[in-house]
Amino acid sequence: MPGSSYGEAFKVTTFGESHGEAVGVIIDGVTPGVEIDEPYIQVQMDRRKPGQSSVTTPRKEYDIINIMSGVFEGKTTGTPLFIMLHNKDMRPEAYSDIQHAFRPGHADFTYLSKYGIRDHRGSGRASGRETAGRVAAGAVARKLLERRGVSLVAYSKEIGGIKCESFVEESIEKNPVRACDPAAAEKMVKRIEELAAVGDSCGGIVECRIRGVKPGVGEPVFDKLDAELAKAMLSIGAIKGIEFGAGFSAAGMLGSEHNDQMNAEGYMTNNAGGIVGGISNGEEIVFRVAVKPTSSISKPQQTMNVRGEEQIIVTEGRHDPCICPRVVPVIEAMACIVLEDLMKRQAALHD
Amino acid sequence: MPGSSYGEAFKVTTFGESHGEAVGVIIDGVTPGVEIDEPYIQVQMDRRKPGQSSVTTPRKEYDIINIMSGVFEGKTTGTPLFIMLHNKDMRPEAYSDIQHAFRPGHADFTYLSKYGIRDHRGSGRASGRETAGRVAAGAVARKLLERRGVSLVAYSKEIGGIKCESFVEESIEKNPVRACDPAAAEKMVKRIEELAAVGDSCGGIVECRIRGVKPGVGEPVFDKLDAELAKAMLSIGAIKGIEFGAGFSAAGMLGSEHNDQMNAEGYMTNNAGGIVGGISNGEEIVFRVAVKPTSSISKPQQTMNVRGEEQIIVTEGRHDPCICPRVVPVIEAMACIVLEDLMKRQAALHD
Amino acid sequence: MPGSSYGEAFKVTTFGESHGEAVGVIIDGVTPGVEIDEPYIQVQMDRRKPGQSSVTTPRKEYDIINIMSGVFEGKTTGTPLFIMLHNKDMRPEAYSDIQHAFRPGHADFTYLSKYGIRDHRGSGRASGRETAGRVAAGAVARKLLERRGVSLVAYSKEIGGIKCESFVEESIEKNPVRACDPAAAEKMVKRIEELAAVGDSCGGIVECRIRGVKPGVGEPVFDKLDAELAKAMLSIGAIKGIEFGAGFSAAGMLGSEHNDQMNAEGYMTNNAGGIVGGISNGEEIVFRVAVKPTSSISKPQQTMNVRGEEQIIVTEGRHDPCICPRVVPVIEAMACIVLEDLMKRQAALHD
Amino acid sequence: MPGSSYGEAFKVTTFGESHGEAVGVIIDGVTPGVEIDEPYIQVQMDRRKPGQSSVTTPRKEYDIINIMSGVFEGKTTGTPLFIMLHNKDMRPEAYSDIQHAFRPGHADFTYLSKYGIRDHRGSGRASGRETAGRVAAGAVARKLLERRGVSLVAYSKEIGGIKCESFVEESIEKNPVRACDPAAAEKMVKRIEELAAVGDSCGGIVECRIRGVKPGVGEPVFDKLDAELAKAMLSIGAIKGIEFGAGFSAAGMLGSEHNDQMNAEGYMTNNAGGIVGGISNGEEIVFRVAVKPTSSISKPQQTMNVRGEEQIIVTEGRHDPCICPRVVPVIEAMACIVLEDLMKRQAALHD
Repeated sequence: MPGSSYGEAFKVTTFGESHGEAVGVIIDGVTPGVEIDEPYIQVQMDRRKPGQSSVTTPRKEYDIINIMSGVFEGKTTGTPLFIMLHNKDMRPEAYSDIQHAFRPGHADFTYLSKYGIRDHRGSGRASGRETAGRVAAGAVARKLLERRGVSLVAYSKEIGGIKCESFVEESIEKNPVRACDPAAAEKMVKRIEELAAVGDSCGGIVECRIRGVKPGVGEPVFDKLDAELAKAMLSIGAIKGIEFGAGFSAAGMLGSEHNDQMNAEGYMTNNAGGIVGGISNGEEIVFRVAVKPTSSISKPQQTMNVRGEEQIIVTEGRHDPCICPRVVPVIEAMACIVLEDLMKRQAALHD
Repeated sequence: MPGSSYGEAFKVTTFGESHGEAVGVIIDGVTPGVEIDEPYIQVQMDRRKPGQSSVTTPRKEYDIINIMSGVFEGKTTGTPLFIMLHNKDMRPEAYSDIQHAFRPGHADFTYLSKYGIRDHRGSGRASGRETAGRVAAGAVARKLLERRGVSLVAYSKEIGGIKCESFVEESIEKNPVRACDPAAAEKMVKRIEELAAVGDSCGGIVECRIRGVKPGVGEPVFDKLDAELAKAMLSIGAIKGIEFGAGFSAAGMLGSEHNDQMNAEGYMTNNAGGIVGGISNGEEIVFRVAVKPTSSISKPQQTMNVRGEEQIIVTEGRHDPCICPRVVPVIEAMACIVLEDLMKRQAALHD
Repeated sequence: MPGSSYGEAFKVTTFGESHGEAVGVIIDGVTPGVEIDEPYIQVQMDRRKPGQSSVTTPRKEYDIINIMSGVFEGKTTGTPLFIMLHNKDMRPEAYSDIQHAFRPGHADFTYLSKYGIRDHRGSGRASGRETAGRVAAGAVARKLLERRGVSLVAYSKEIGGIKCESFVEESIEKNPVRACDPAAAEKMVKRIEELAAVGDSCGGIVECRIRGVKPGVGEPVFDKLDAELAKAMLSIGAIKGIEFGAGFSAAGMLGSEHNDQMNAEGYMTNNAGGIVGGISNGEEIVFRVAVKPTSSISKPQQTMNVRGEEQIIVTEGRHDPCICPRVVPVIEAMACIVLEDLMKRQAALHD
Repeated sequence: MPGSSYGEAFKVTTFGESHGEAVGVIIDGVTPGVEIDEPYIQVQMDRRKPGQSSVTTPRKEYDIINIMSGVFEGKTTGTPLFIMLHNKDMRPEAYSDIQHAFRPGHADFTYLSKYGIRDHRGSGRASGRETAGRVAAGAVARKLLERRGVSLVAYSKEIGGIKCESFVEESIEKNPVRACDPAAAEKMVKRIEELAAVGDSCGGIVECRIRGVKPGVGEPVFDKLDAELAKAMLSIGAIKGIEFGAGFSAAGMLGSEHNDQMNAEGYMTNNAGGIVGGISNGEEIVFRVAVKPTSSISKPQQTMNVRGEEQIIVTEGRHDPCICPRVVPVIEAMACIVLEDLMKRQAALHD
């Protein structure tokens, strides 16, 4: 019932606060006999870690992972993989000013409301730091999906009002904002730097494409493939919306426009985004998520403190002025976890 | 693992195909000692049933519910409520033409891909008929939420390209499209009738507002309140996207614009849509979903049959030319189920 | 969280009280494309139903099952099977005397304590009638297990102090107490009739043997094969204990006696009862359960009523003076459900 | 679906092999605001650790626990507690002789059958070392139960054929076998030492008594209190059976003997062991488990190796010649976890 686990057949349980001793993840249900090692997972961790460029925070989060169980002589054993990351940069003093005031856009007030107690060092469990465990688990899922011929890519499609006009897949990991259009990427970097200079932040839209999923994946009714992806994406702190295929634009379309007709080769269009009735149809799975602007800004804002008094707050420290670049690997990780879980569930059904 | 159950503390399990003998739901975890009766639930069933107006299908689905366990002398006993609806309008012959061809926009191809077998009478388990069980369960959840002071309303905000310009709550149930703007409603009805006349359909946007949820509801990390609502909404067949509060427009906002600042009375804006860090903040919870145009249209469409041959298909029968009016009570039902479940989970945490 | 569901990959959810309108079960996760029909399931229902002989209650419970979803043209579709049994013999007046008093051995007091409300007609949800749904689900699991080459048999090994001395498998279903020793069976029948004549009841021991389970079934740590079987058996109302293989006698053995040594053909003994470390080892799985004497007896007993006053109670009506014969098919059903679930889980792990 | 988690409202997930880097546990669903510290948990760890006396193994397992998340300034925060123990005594070479042969009584063959791969250093995940994480989680549950007035005690009732004749509770933790009869304890120690000297081992019976559980705890049908306790106990490697109250002796009793009658003070006897219909009745909860003799013995035994050849095996190393003393705290831990989970579930039901 508490919310720190996801998945049924491929089950991920995370723990850890931003300023505790460690964060990490137990992954249960990993196929035995699969070769995996720490460098493979570390590649994904490094895509998420701070300090990758001028547009991400220079904080040194230590993202060096350690597989502490579930792998023997380079292969998975089928028992739980436990992956841990120590928090080495614990400086609670930097957060003493937020001990009593609720930062706008942050979960300070809601966590205190929920628990009646709050770890006021950073964002505690609501910190983006928690996603490190997810990215580690996602890398394990990605490894399992490779055997199935499934691959995926996520990228910034819009940042700070600047939209990508082209799709150049090989450029994505080569620009600091992970945009799919190199020309737009340059403008996005400039826009983010301008905003950072004045202590503000911006949001954006990230798109994800998943290839190689055969028709038939996803459970009907409640655990539809799109329902599970929606849950997984909205479980990422900064995400405020999701749409599949034509998405919200479907609201303005006619049935005769939106229906994907078929010919002998298969579907002629992909307005469905690869999912019909909650089940994959063999086409590329396409979804987009709305990323809100970073809550931590250094512009003065009005807020309330724990005594109910109004006060002005300035969020000190250096934070990502735009979350998009670093949320890309988290989105990919969650998509991998969802897919591996549903594919294992499909295997159970047919056994 | 199979997908017919939702919820952990308030657990809903549905069964039934559109053309089987019955559909229904087992609801486990209902608070004992609460007064409930069939007429209370029937009110919600009647909002979902077909044939309510000129813009909904005239098929006679029998939506008369029967509580067959879990209530004794007018009160819940704490044991599973079982609610069933017989399917009385089984005319498989009407569907014989779709036995071998995949209807565009429908789950025919994906179901056959998933199961290797398909109940070709109507949409089987993927039919909107399945949501009858959800609406019944939602009515039970709604009853439990009333004790908590929680209420909610959903309504069409846009249909066929026509947008509501005003919000007149008391008008919603008085117009056949359940729009929040009576003037827009008239135009929507006209638009739907025009499309129906030429055998086409249209989509729309439905918005939901939930009031009275205290701060602190929702589990952190994976089972966030918005994540669970997103899953629940995307589990409804026709929904292709969801956004909370400012939603996708947050992508174009600055942090200084999007952050909801606080004064001594509480939040000054509600861009977050009532949920921060996955937990309710005491404000109105607001989300919108994208409803795709009805897949069943009588315009000829190209498709493939089970032998892989191309063919032209016309979906016979009368179907809703726009799903929005009838999906409104389903959206409310799922929202009620999600909220009651998470509130019970909150009680367990603090016990 | 509420307790009416069992299983993860093969998921069973029951509903219904002894004196409500119906009892039944939703079975989700059934392998699609498997031939099944009502007569196959009815065979198991008839083994559980009352009135089979002089040693079982003559009450007419209506155990005619109806598959209402999940089967199409004689084959499972992979969607939930819903199986229902109407309660036709509802005579609440027969139970009016127990409305206010707690019957010794029954769950009257504990149910009222748990829920604060009680359906006082019969035993409500705690009635043996609830197991009808389990037997129906068990028959479906049995069908799926047949494809895997798994079979099983349960039988009375001891009743009213009379122990079976021989094991004649083909005699089990031919004697009214389902004992494995025809000579003992005769004495058991006589013993039960004597006790019934004086308004008393007796208990016994039921043993179950499962054949054809390959090595490797069962999840380590919490969901061990023996742990799941223990849970499933103790979830049957009358069961007060379970032991595997040598069981409690292992407490008095030496390691050198208890360890099952191996030769080139496999295990040389089966003290483990076919399960080591929670996982099947390919030998026959053997367990025994302790069945308590029927709580409903017509001898006067002292009890308390809902007002806290002492009173004498006589449980009217005809009840089984020994549960063993009718609990045999319930034990088999639960064992089938556990096995099918764990085998599907094994398939998910290796996918 | 994989088996490393237990509990729904109070959820425990363990990881770790005997010879990996660490073992440990994530506990999710801990009530926030409760004072807890490492020394409180360490007390229970020390009761389980090896080397406590002449009758337990002198191996130095490092059982020093570290709470790495979920506690802030001495109080639980409601977020997952992560507790880890490093494995410092990894000497894989000591196990090289068992790399290819299956030790009788051990899970070597069944693990290889299940996974197709095996960590042959010690017993891997099937090692008693895994229970360290459970004992840590059990200590947290024990702390939460203290607030509810619940306490419990487990003890050896029979070891190596020697039975306790008296019940002297305060003597239990004062003798090395944790027996409830000091005189019997002396004989048990002598018996164990004799067996150890000849390289053999013995089993026993452990009893557990739980006090202070109010009537009404336990879910009906599948998740009965006794069903959950049975699952939890059988999930401990060495346990081969469980019985509640009169248990297997109920098989030989009459209904008039076994039924617990009531007077105005409550129940007059406790044959039920404190649980009726799967729900606590307010009496002491009493159960006994059968503990098999330790599988690791130094007497030569016949076995098979991975190539299917017969061979003689001698399990080197020092192992507990009787598991009972060290399994006592594991049994208590699992009972605490089961109770805390079911009590939280009861709170959710009534919310």
